[in-house]
Amino acid sequence: MLSATRLPQDAVAEPAGWSRDAAASHVMDSAGCLDVGHVRALLVRGEELLLDSASDSPARSGLRDMADVSKRVSWSVREPQHEDGENTPLLNGTSTGGAQPVRPHSNQSLFRIGQLSTVDLSDESNETETEMMSKSDEEVTHTENLLSLKYESLDYDNSENLLFLEEERRINHAAFRTVEVTRWVICGMIGILTGLIACFIDIMVELLAGVKYQVIKDNIDKFTESGGLSFSLLLWATLNAAIVLVGSLLVAFIEPVAAGSGIPQIKCFLNGVKIPHVVRLKTLVIKVCGVILSVSGGLAVGKEGPMIHSGAVIAAGISQGRSTSLKRDFKIFEYFRRDTEKRDFVSAGAAAGVSAAFGAPVGGVLFSLEEGASFWNQLLTWRIFFASVISTFTLNFVLSIYKKKPGDLSNPGLINFGRFDTDENSYKYFELPIFICMGAIGGIVGALFNALNNWLTIFRIRYLHRRYLQVVEAVLVAAVTGAVSFVMIYYSTDCQPLREGAMEYPLQLFCADGQYSAMASAFFNTPERSVRSLFHDPAGTFNPQTLGSFTLLYFILAVWTYGLTVSAGVFIPSLLLGAAWGRLFGILLTNIPNSTWADPGKYALMGAAAQLGGIVRMTLSLTVIMVEATGNVTYGFPIMLVLITAKLVGDFFIEGLYDLHIKLQSVPFLHWEAPVTSHSLAAREVMSMQVTCLKRREKVGIIVDILSDTTTNHNGFPVIENDGVPGQPARLCGLILRSQLIVLLKHKVFVERENLSITQNRLSLKDFRDAYPRFPPIQSIHVSQDERECLMDLTEFMNPTPYTVPQEASLPRVFKLFRALGLRHLVVVDNHNKVVGLVTRKDLARYRIGKNGLEEMSLAHT
Amino acid sequence: MLSATRLPQDAVAEPAGWSRDAAASHVMDSAGCLDVGHVRALLVRGEELLLDSASDSPARSGLRDMADVSKRVSWSVREPQHEDGENTPLLNGTSTGGAQPVRPHSNQSLFRIGQLSTVDLSDESNETETEMMSKSDEEVTHTENLLSLKYESLDYDNSENLLFLEEERRINHAAFRTVEVTRWVICGMIGILTGLIACFIDIMVELLAGVKYQVIKDNIDKFTESGGLSFSLLLWATLNAAIVLVGSLLVAFIEPVAAGSGIPQIKCFLNGVKIPHVVRLKTLVIKVCGVILSVSGGLAVGKEGPMIHSGAVIAAGISQGRSTSLKRDFKIFEYFRRDTEKRDFVSAGAAAGVSAAFGAPVGGVLFSLEEGASFWNQLLTWRIFFASVISTFTLNFVLSIYKKKPGDLSNPGLINFGRFDTDENSYKYFELPIFICMGAIGGIVGALFNALNNWLTIFRIRYLHRRYLQVVEAVLVAAVTGAVSFVMIYYSTDCQPLREGAMEYPLQLFCADGQYSAMASAFFNTPERSVRSLFHDPAGTFNPQTLGSFTLLYFILAVWTYGLTVSAGVFIPSLLLGAAWGRLFGILLTNIPNSTWADPGKYALMGAAAQLGGIVRMTLSLTVIMVEATGNVTYGFPIMLVLITAKLVGDFFIEGLYDLHIKLQSVPFLHWEAPVTSHSLAAREVMSMQVTCLKRREKVGIIVDILSDTTTNHNGFPVIENDGVPGQPARLCGLILRSQLIVLLKHKVFVERENLSITQNRLSLKDFRDAYPRFPPIQSIHVSQDERECLMDLTEFMNPTPYTVPQEASLPRVFKLFRALGLRHLVVVDNHNKVVGLVTRKDLARYRIGKNGLEEMSLAHT
Repeated sequence: MLSATRLPQDAVAEPAGWSRDAAASHVMDSAGCLDVGHVRALLVRGEELLLDSASDSPARSGLRDMADVSKRVSWSVREPQHEDGENTPLLNGTSTGGAQPVRPHSNQSLFRIGQLSTVDLSDESNETETEMMSKSDEEVTHTENLLSLKYESLDYDNSENLLFLEEERRINHAAFRTVEVTRWVICGMIGILTGLIACFIDIMVELLAGVKYQVIKDNIDKFTESGGLSFSLLLWATLNAAIVLVGSLLVAFIEPVAAGSGIPQIKCFLNGVKIPHVVRLKTLVIKVCGVILSVSGGLAVGKEGPMIHSGAVIAAGISQGRSTSLKRDFKIFEYFRRDTEKRDFVSAGAAAGVSAAFGAPVGGVLFSLEEGASFWNQLLTWRIFFASVISTFTLNFVLSIYKKKPGDLSNPGLINFGRFDTDENSYKYFELPIFICMGAIGGIVGALFNALNNWLTIFRIRYLHRRYLQVVEAVLVAAVTGAVSFVMIYYSTDCQPLREGAMEYPLQLFCADGQYSAMASAFFNTPERSVRSLFHDPAGTFNPQTLGSFTLLYFILAVWTYGLTVSAGVFIPSLLLGAAWGRLFGILLTNIPNSTWADPGKYALMGAAAQLGGIVRMTLSLTVIMVEATGNVTYGFPIMLVLITAKLVGDFFIEGLYDLHIKLQSVPFLHWEAPVTSHSLAAREVMSMQVTCLKRREKVGIIVDILSDTTTNHNGFPVIENDGVPGQPARLCGLILRSQLIVLLKHKVFVERENLSITQNRLSLKDFRDAYPRFPPIQSIHVSQDERECLMDLTEFMNPTPYTVPQEASLPRVFKLFRALGLRHLVVVDNHNKVVGLVTRKDLARYRIGKNGLEEMSLAHT
Repeated sequence: MLSATRLPQDAVAEPAGWSRDAAASHVMDSAGCLDVGHVRALLVRGEELLLDSASDSPARSGLRDMADVSKRVSWSVREPQHEDGENTPLLNGTSTGGAQPVRPHSNQSLFRIGQLSTVDLSDESNETETEMMSKSDEEVTHTENLLSLKYESLDYDNSENLLFLEEERRINHAAFRTVEVTRWVICGMIGILTGLIACFIDIMVELLAGVKYQVIKDNIDKFTESGGLSFSLLLWATLNAAIVLVGSLLVAFIEPVAAGSGIPQIKCFLNGVKIPHVVRLKTLVIKVCGVILSVSGGLAVGKEGPMIHSGAVIAAGISQGRSTSLKRDFKIFEYFRRDTEKRDFVSAGAAAGVSAAFGAPVGGVLFSLEEGASFWNQLLTWRIFFASVISTFTLNFVLSIYKKKPGDLSNPGLINFGRFDTDENSYKYFELPIFICMGAIGGIVGALFNALNNWLTIFRIRYLHRRYLQVVEAVLVAAVTGAVSFVMIYYSTDCQPLREGAMEYPLQLFCADGQYSAMASAFFNTPERSVRSLFHDPAGTFNPQTLGSFTLLYFILAVWTYGLTVSAGVFIPSLLLGAAWGRLFGILLTNIPNSTWADPGKYALMGAAAQLGGIVRMTLSLTVIMVEATGNVTYGFPIMLVLITAKLVGDFFIEGLYDLHIKLQSVPFLHWEAPVTSHSLAAREVMSMQVTCLKRREKVGIIVDILSDTTTNHNGFPVIENDGVPGQPARLCGLILRSQLIVLLKHKVFVERENLSITQNRLSLKDFRDAYPRFPPIQSIHVSQDERECLMDLTEFMNPTPYTVPQEASLPRVFKLFRALGLRHLVVVDNHNKVVGLVTRKDLARYRIGKNGLEEMSLAHT
């Protein structure tokens, strides 16, 4: 089925004409480079086969549904209203293969497509649309073999046009020093603000959860004697549900992209994919409120993942010196208003987030580098490191003052594993195989977790795409979590003697005086505290039955919880789960004779590492984070062993949780390398052939038509010229972006046709930066009929030196170039320097290794 | 003076002919792309102005001397015999600007140049030359503004020719899995072997130093009572001198590249520069023996830096499955016989070395990534990490058995900082500014260290280039070190009570019974032990005078020692120096009232970090290494602060030690980014214009002539073709390397001129891999007169898709492409895809920010 969407080789080898609109009138040369003033029916590849006729074969309708679902999966769930009765409304007007001229600005349905298609230029425009969906929620099939066309790329390659070069040449060495110092200052501010946000979350969660647990504890204590504990059950479940309801409403109706941990979204951003709304101030506010509410609401979630997202948003905001949400422009840091610079700061923000979350500055830097930096730059690393260090220090400092222990340095992060006081020989050689076994268990359990969550997510995508349903599910989970916790505590008979300062809310329940319920110390607590008590409570604090049943139930709860429409991370649940079975493992080991070495706390730590590694599969950064959070290098080596094993075992079954979710969103994510067997593909076979080329001096009308053309919706246009020799083929001389053209149109940088010598309006880089990143849609720009006849000289604005590859270059070669330089468009030329195609992110992300070797995913135009 | 060597812009703008030999007869097109069958007098740029006349103006002779010295500086000091009476013998025959035909294979002097010029293809050939220099050792001036032409680049870009693609396409997914598994196995072997080598060094040093110190101690004990301690002084000095003599002789006469720590060389290798002999088995053997002898000989050196070099050599050896030195080919791992793969393994080896040296596996990975990996690849990171973990484990395991404490895990690295047992609040907030001050001191002292050593190195280059002088200096330093140590101990009155197990060789000397000399615990010990005693000996063990005088003397000794012709690292001396003044600092702080927090050990640690950071200036990796070696994350944050400060302060004055030494070697090292103000330069102005192009079907005679042409000595040749249309300009259609041409010539892959249709000899990739990396020199290949008339079809062997840039691309853009992809040749084309130039490493490395903005270094043809 998939290979059916692949173009036949012959068609590729003959670029000119196969899919060209009969009405196309502006053919410029013989190389398939079309001047597409009127070429509208050019179909994005794959789509043609999808929708080229009205036939209703099952395979086709399935594919159409896929296209439909991948839109609905989207992290930014602000869906457009669909026209009633249209089955594939977004593809309307493009479903005919032939010549069907479309009137711009008249067809209402098309107009909306136009808005959607410029989502990267202005995702603002979507907001004018009505909020609720009118589409019936019949079941839709889902497949992973889909790549959404709706995500645009970020452009990490500077457009080195004349304006840019002029500016760079004007800046002398001293000025560059100022820029560099500014970067450091910004990184410092990112660190401070991220640390403060982390403090705020921490304190709010503590207050809110404190109130909640106190109320419930009082209630339970009251009813334990008098009977009627079902009231307590009800109270607990209701409190949970109420808190989560607020959090879920915020997320679902105000900013859906704030759901989840945000790590997959940040991974995508650093990879170069533009996820709409992901680094907005509004997202940050909702994220912070959401995570406070969902943790306080007793869900099996952590507040660490969201910190990474928060840090990234802060970084994106500060570095741009303005907030579009607040409509404030501080007129500072204008130099940094481009994707290249922004990405660097977002890396620093993500690192600062990790650093604040785990007290792990080095781990934070590694996280950013692993996920984002395709190109390791020492200066950048330094800055990221600086932001991380500042962030953890700020958190530590503020918390120590808040807790009235100034000078206390024990709170470097939101999660604190507590102190492992170990003697030098805290583990023996023969324990290493045991640790490896635990790593394997972690890998298997993690794979199971991921598989179940994957299945659940597909289920959610199919059946739970209405917002109120998502809210209902979140509330349900919260209530069930409360109820299950209560029932577990109620039926548990594991009573432990009360120790000094062991627990904040010791639940006596049915235990004798001076004792408390051990199950409650796992369930009646924020997950962070539970983890710590599993790590550090002395041997004998938990009995195996308690741990076993806790593990099982918590596993189910955690699987169910991840992916709900609330802001929440998966780190802490993973750690808690692993700590529980790890401790159980340790307790079982003590049954072996002479097993004084089997400290349950140590095994809880290894279990936590194994479980976390098995679920998220981060590599070096995770090791460092674990070691830094443990505060003890002694366990570094066994933790490494456990993580390596967990990763290898887990990868054998299924991908990591974040990668799964990225895949389910159909994001065109570029992995580290091209698939190993892809040497058989050449650029010629990979590239998009529907390249729209512009002339160096182009008619304004043609440019407007091209930009308004919603069927192609290109973002990069090769600029060609003819050497002035008629008959000679036109050669590539530059590349210009949609966003640049829009700014040019907006400022009416035209030359009258009659007097070609008139200089155009002067534009400076500032005009482009002011419009960044939310460029207006083409529809908002009015061009009069007279103006359409003018010419536009692109020489000054195009990038005169775009990277190119010859058409015979192999896919891995193209991939390497594209990935290493963070490109958005790569022009494919023949050996006369004529444009024959354009490689974009989607063209590369489509290929992957499947069960039968190289597979190709379909593209869905959502 | 420097700008005089820059070509005038006009010359650049007019590529054809400005430097073309009048005898050149093979001009192929009008774009300056010469078919240089007889073009001999094309001068490497800069040289023309250097040597274009016999005039003897001071500036010119200065420059000539520069060219001369930069050769002598070389890490591989195997210098060729100079012709008597020739002042610039290597440039002989090239010093005329005009047409002076040269007979190949006849001029003895030229023949030698030929050998030299193919140093990257066969540095073996040098070995036939006589060992001793006959050149008089008059003073030569030295300058840093020089870039040696003698270092070749490694080629990290796969030549994706038809053979390569054929092979890759033949390999299916399962086979790739096997390759991947093989990579892991190799990394495991690298780890194990590196660990074993580290063990060997450690044990040998301990044995040898043990014997030495025991002998001296017995002698001192004997003469303390009876008088005549001058005998002991003599004995100590002589023993040191004797041991170092052997070590220095080995290094100076057998393998000069084994001198020093090897870290600069490995940095260069990972950066992409081919340092001759650097990853040879012979180098490893000499390095290991040398480091054992120099540490045992009592020099102020460490054995950690050399471990990094050793690991790299092991990796290069194992991954190739053969040793050319041993003339053994195990016929395994043939797939990995290319620069791309080898580099990855060398990264792993270097990481394993760091890991074994410091017990810091994560630090090792970071070191490799910081230095080498321009492109961060998660899979590669994993493998490197694996090698590191295995390496430290092996070391730990073997040492624990050797020390008869199996199961003891306290020896993860060669240097062990010992255990810092700290309570949770081991430092206070108000100490942080103190730490920052210490960082600043470290930065300043480090800068002083580097400046002095830099000056000393220039001195050595000028006056001490004879080998026996180098050996004499090393022996002298050894004797002086012994003598100074003895004198210091002799005059010290700092006696301390003897504690259990505090010292291995407690020197009583003039102290009362039950006491020992504190100065001896710093001087009469291997440096590793001294560091540990400074870190951990209880407060009061050293008095300030002892520490002060020790710091001063050791500083001088350490500065003098680094750069000697012995194998030795600078890590431990730096740490020891810093620990000494850090402890002194701590002791001074205790004079403040209520200063119970001022633990001298803690301040010793911070001082050590500051000093090391101030000297070597590594960044993130150093932090992690220090934290891992300390075994305690508690000090992580202050160590970071200290290192950041030390780096910033130090960088204000002078570069890091390794960078200085790289600069002194005139290595074309590519930094992270192009100089910030270099946007004003375009590829057109940067590129080399002496491109020698080949036709797709080229005459063998022409190829042989080009390869034998020692004046140009190109390594990459663009291949061009004419489209079969006469009159049309020829276009780039591929790139072929010297090494490939040589293999082709060797296998006589010719087509007779008469029957063009005859298929050439079939060659497979294996033939190229067998010749890798020491390709025979062109002179060793005999081509008969008949064969010279044959044609060679390059289609199958050239890389058909070389990366290109347009000639208007800015330098930063070219730099980014070059650096990110690890290129060796980057073809510059005009917009008709005609070759106009070639950018190589030297063209990019020449530019740097100097005092007056952008500067350009001269190229010296050595």
